[in-house]
Amino acid sequence: MYLEQIDGPEDLKRLATEQLVHLAREIREELVRIVAANGGHLAPNLGVVELTLALHRVFDSPRDKIIWDVGHQCYVHKLVTGRRRQFASLRRYGGLSGFPKREESPHDPFNTGHSSTSISAALGLALARDLAGEDYEVVAVIGDGAMTAGMAYEALNHAGHLQTHLIVVLNDNERSIGHSVGAMAAYLGRLRASSTYARSKKRFEQLMRSWSPAGPKVLRAAERLKDSLKHLLVPGMVFEELGFTYLGPVDGHDLTALQEVLSWARKLEGPVLVHVLTKKGKGYQPAEENPDVFHGIGPFDAQSGRLQEKTPFPSYTAVFGRTLVRLAEQDSRVVAITAAMASGTGLEDFARRFPRRFFDVGIAEQHAVTLAAGLAAAGLKPVVAVYSTFLQRAYDQVVHDVCLQRLPVVLALDRAGLVGEDGETHQGTFDLAYLRHVPHLTVMVPKDEDELQHLLCTALQLDGPAALRYPRGRGRGVNLASEPWPLPVGRGEVLREGRHLVVLAVGPPVYEALAAAELLARKGIETTVINARFVKPLDREMIVRQVKRAGYLLTVEEHVLAGGFGSAVLELLAAEGVRPAAVRCLGIPDCFVGHGGPEQLRAELGLDARGIARAAEALLRSEYAAAKWVGTPRGRTRTGGRANQHCPETNWG
Amino acid sequence: MYLEQIDGPEDLKRLATEQLVHLAREIREELVRIVAANGGHLAPNLGVVELTLALHRVFDSPRDKIIWDVGHQCYVHKLVTGRRRQFASLRRYGGLSGFPKREESPHDPFNTGHSSTSISAALGLALARDLAGEDYEVVAVIGDGAMTAGMAYEALNHAGHLQTHLIVVLNDNERSIGHSVGAMAAYLGRLRASSTYARSKKRFEQLMRSWSPAGPKVLRAAERLKDSLKHLLVPGMVFEELGFTYLGPVDGHDLTALQEVLSWARKLEGPVLVHVLTKKGKGYQPAEENPDVFHGIGPFDAQSGRLQEKTPFPSYTAVFGRTLVRLAEQDSRVVAITAAMASGTGLEDFARRFPRRFFDVGIAEQHAVTLAAGLAAAGLKPVVAVYSTFLQRAYDQVVHDVCLQRLPVVLALDRAGLVGEDGETHQGTFDLAYLRHVPHLTVMVPKDEDELQHLLCTALQLDGPAALRYPRGRGRGVNLASEPWPLPVGRGEVLREGRHLVVLAVGPPVYEALAAAELLARKGIETTVINARFVKPLDREMIVRQVKRAGYLLTVEEHVLAGGFGSAVLELLAAEGVRPAAVRCLGIPDCFVGHGGPEQLRAELGLDARGIARAAEALLRSEYAAAKWVGTPRGRTRTGGRANQHCPETNWG
Repeated sequence: MYLEQIDGPEDLKRLATEQLVHLAREIREELVRIVAANGGHLAPNLGVVELTLALHRVFDSPRDKIIWDVGHQCYVHKLVTGRRRQFASLRRYGGLSGFPKREESPHDPFNTGHSSTSISAALGLALARDLAGEDYEVVAVIGDGAMTAGMAYEALNHAGHLQTHLIVVLNDNERSIGHSVGAMAAYLGRLRASSTYARSKKRFEQLMRSWSPAGPKVLRAAERLKDSLKHLLVPGMVFEELGFTYLGPVDGHDLTALQEVLSWARKLEGPVLVHVLTKKGKGYQPAEENPDVFHGIGPFDAQSGRLQEKTPFPSYTAVFGRTLVRLAEQDSRVVAITAAMASGTGLEDFARRFPRRFFDVGIAEQHAVTLAAGLAAAGLKPVVAVYSTFLQRAYDQVVHDVCLQRLPVVLALDRAGLVGEDGETHQGTFDLAYLRHVPHLTVMVPKDEDELQHLLCTALQLDGPAALRYPRGRGRGVNLASEPWPLPVGRGEVLREGRHLVVLAVGPPVYEALAAAELLARKGIETTVINARFVKPLDREMIVRQVKRAGYLLTVEEHVLAGGFGSAVLELLAAEGVRPAAVRCLGIPDCFVGHGGPEQLRAELGLDARGIARAAEALLRSEYAAAKWVGTPRGRTRTGGRANQHCPETNWG
Repeated sequence: MYLEQIDGPEDLKRLATEQLVHLAREIREELVRIVAANGGHLAPNLGVVELTLALHRVFDSPRDKIIWDVGHQCYVHKLVTGRRRQFASLRRYGGLSGFPKREESPHDPFNTGHSSTSISAALGLALARDLAGEDYEVVAVIGDGAMTAGMAYEALNHAGHLQTHLIVVLNDNERSIGHSVGAMAAYLGRLRASSTYARSKKRFEQLMRSWSPAGPKVLRAAERLKDSLKHLLVPGMVFEELGFTYLGPVDGHDLTALQEVLSWARKLEGPVLVHVLTKKGKGYQPAEENPDVFHGIGPFDAQSGRLQEKTPFPSYTAVFGRTLVRLAEQDSRVVAITAAMASGTGLEDFARRFPRRFFDVGIAEQHAVTLAAGLAAAGLKPVVAVYSTFLQRAYDQVVHDVCLQRLPVVLALDRAGLVGEDGETHQGTFDLAYLRHVPHLTVMVPKDEDELQHLLCTALQLDGPAALRYPRGRGRGVNLASEPWPLPVGRGEVLREGRHLVVLAVGPPVYEALAAAELLARKGIETTVINARFVKPLDREMIVRQVKRAGYLLTVEEHVLAGGFGSAVLELLAAEGVRPAAVRCLGIPDCFVGHGGPEQLRAELGLDARGIARAAEALLRSEYAAAKWVGTPRGRTRTGGRANQHCPETNWG
């Protein structure tokens, strides 16, 4: 058992290469064991076991800085940098994060989560190093999928220009989550085929020998050979043209070769790109066979690789995908766009049914949104299916390319609200705030998976842009109408009437509000519960009437309070001159919410039925001004766990 | 006089090439005449006269679609597509926009303004064309500067993968606004040097003849020749590797050559990149000599090329730049980053003084912000100077890379608020809404150029991220303290006290509020005027106290109302249980504001002293619920001009 002896990178350096091979096997067993129990990103980590070990043998972390792009492939790194004993707590509430975290270890020099940031961050560290006259190494490890994002190119372009020494390890497993998309992927494929640099040079030499020095003949030969020759001459020419020294490709499971090439990269000057070929899921047969399934996975049986039984209810994602197919059958103008998340956003069936109307652009949210604008400008009805947190990448394109031209693009935001175990970097808790102020945009939030169907139908009938947000995971198991129909725009629905208090909720918290109303009813408090449905435009007439009648108002959303749904309601009331007796907004306070089960986080944030009922009672007692509930801007929030480890105590309001 | 005869592209096709040369001269005269009077983007348009004529000769607009990236080089296109008679109204209130606008002409198929969107939009149009079984051409014209943005690469990558036929014209003038930055720029430089494809092939042939077929010798020769050879073999290899057919480089002022290469591009299948070399400012000596000055310019004397006398007050930009130099002298950790806007953001002196601490990343806002995060993670104090509207491109990087890690990056947002003549695409009116909800971020707004100094100093002393927004153009001419000092974080200042009403303003509108207080005083209304300074954290204690005392509250900001400063104040009052007798928020309603003079727009939006006084009186009469003032969400806004041509009447609230 070698893993037990590894408390830090220095312990790795004591092992012989044969011992490392054993260690790699132990690490794979540990990865499978823990991810089978906790869920997580298995296949990407199985693919980088040798690469991680080689990096920690050649470099001296934490003096040398290793930045893991996206970061979900950092498990092996965590195991060998002193976090082995906490590894069983991975992705659990209060436990190790599934992503690099500066707060966790000096071996994590920069937090990641979203893709394609690592080269920019590494260049920043490298430039700071040079300014300080220091000489540590900076390494960014980035997947081929992440290389499709423009941000990675921006950073390569700048690093190549400056000629700052840094090492980019291109972890090429031919896929981002599904197969990698784009001309860059095809290019990498050709490089892969060209094998090693050394071999290329040899073949070039042979080619040269076979040529005669005659004139026009040579030219014709050159023409014919152009395509193969250009790769042979300088593999990685695109990177070379961008100012990088290209090394590779090298077998990413060959510890000796990896250590050799990394040592070489270390000695070179300027920016270096090391092209490493790895196999996603390596060493665990179920993951090798189904790397997509084992990319990010819930708990499963380690022996068989079978997933634990799923809920009988379809997920929001599945209902979205199914509804979109139905609507696309009826309207040939409907097209769908994903940024490397066909499966994650439920578009696999759409892609099979309508291959010409389906566009996977790779990890490139900016392009995805403006492409949609172009398609819409030509009369189509594009639906961009994207996680809420990733649409943050395309905020400007939503403003500048879609909404300014009032183009009928539908933004379908999956994973909105609390996402759970992925934590801070992936929470979909800012979308209403970054979308609500964009002119011309209609913003909708279904309360359940059935309403999702109808709102998607509504969005596709609009003459302008629309955004639709819905949560991760299973639906509520409500009855699904067999056909979606359009709902009136800007109209909410009253689900329960009571004279003491109005609870105005949006999205799945509507059900928590209904349950809270039950709890309150037991205490004689009669509650009106409204499903707002539309964050923009709000149901002005209904909100004004109901608030005027009851006097007490509580808004509820699974979203940050600043600039969110409650904020929109306050703006409306101010503009209408409506003065409630008391009003409180429930939502997420001004902090990043950490990882943990969504139910647990929700309870902690006071966004479950009990929390809402508690806030309602306080509101009616008009104690809210001094209350200490979550969401109260002053003073400490009630959440004490890791969920709010970054929650500042006093910087809000 | 040929220009008089051109009412559309079809008229161009009737002219002989010699006549076109005359026409080009007339167009240049017209460009200089009108831009000298109205201000605008002169040098970029002078550079594309022949290119525009050639495009309209080879293609059939509006059937064929021409998309101008960024769009400020569309003047010639406007002149020859039926907008010649309105050309004198360019960039004026109610007149022609300085950018392509679908609302203006069928010859403008897609609006642009921000850089690097054109290939995505063109691909969208081309894909829609193919789905519809049509066969029109789609052409994107993009500058070499815009090619540094990741978004352009994302689109190239996708188009190269799909092999959809479209034409990208790379308008290479070696500069974005200043000189182009990055390895891609260097690469284009090498292509430029390699001259035409045909000539390259010839030289390759010569090289081949000079070689002997011996073994190791050849290899050494190949090694030596590698660098030159790889460009000679296939010029534009990077584009070829990305799946494009590369044509060029071609002289962008040779009408015959341009028409030839564009006709060739039209006949090819798949995506084609045409590399065109142009000279910015071509044909007008002052602009040829100073292309940067004549990039975007105010009114000037056409004869001499001299700028009209400037205001004696330094601009906000100049004060920012000067202060940053001073602070950088005192703290060697201060570094500055710009995205191709060193001059526009006032960093030229900084760059001269501290060349190693200055980073121009090219048009690459995403990379700029994450690079800053990397620099900050290594202990430096980076300041990213960027226009408010362009930081929209890096929203995710602000959230994910800077604020989540609470890194001390200063975001200096120039051109915040109304920018005037550039119009809709460039208004800096969303920044508070897209920044205010980001945890850990301190958001500051100086009321004048002196406060800008002190808030910059304050920002650099913080232990976390800060954003600072200030307007375009000249300062107010206030006294400038000789040394900047830090101001207390989260504290506003009371500038005037009165018992009837509180006006809580932020930024330069503070002065309008003071002037409004004067107007109100004449009617016996006593007004408290507060400069909030901090949008986050708000001065909770002071706001609560003042609002409780006066009862009536007006907030004022040069920013959209949804999610803005007023919205933050409403959230605070709700959370604190403070119920003003009446409250109104003044700001920009839910629409994109068009081009025109800022003073004029401000008056129309009711954000000048008179508008504020009017709103205050209405508020005190409690008529505001039924009022029709700008910013009132219900009913029509009072602005009737082009400023609000897109303002929906009822979609807000």
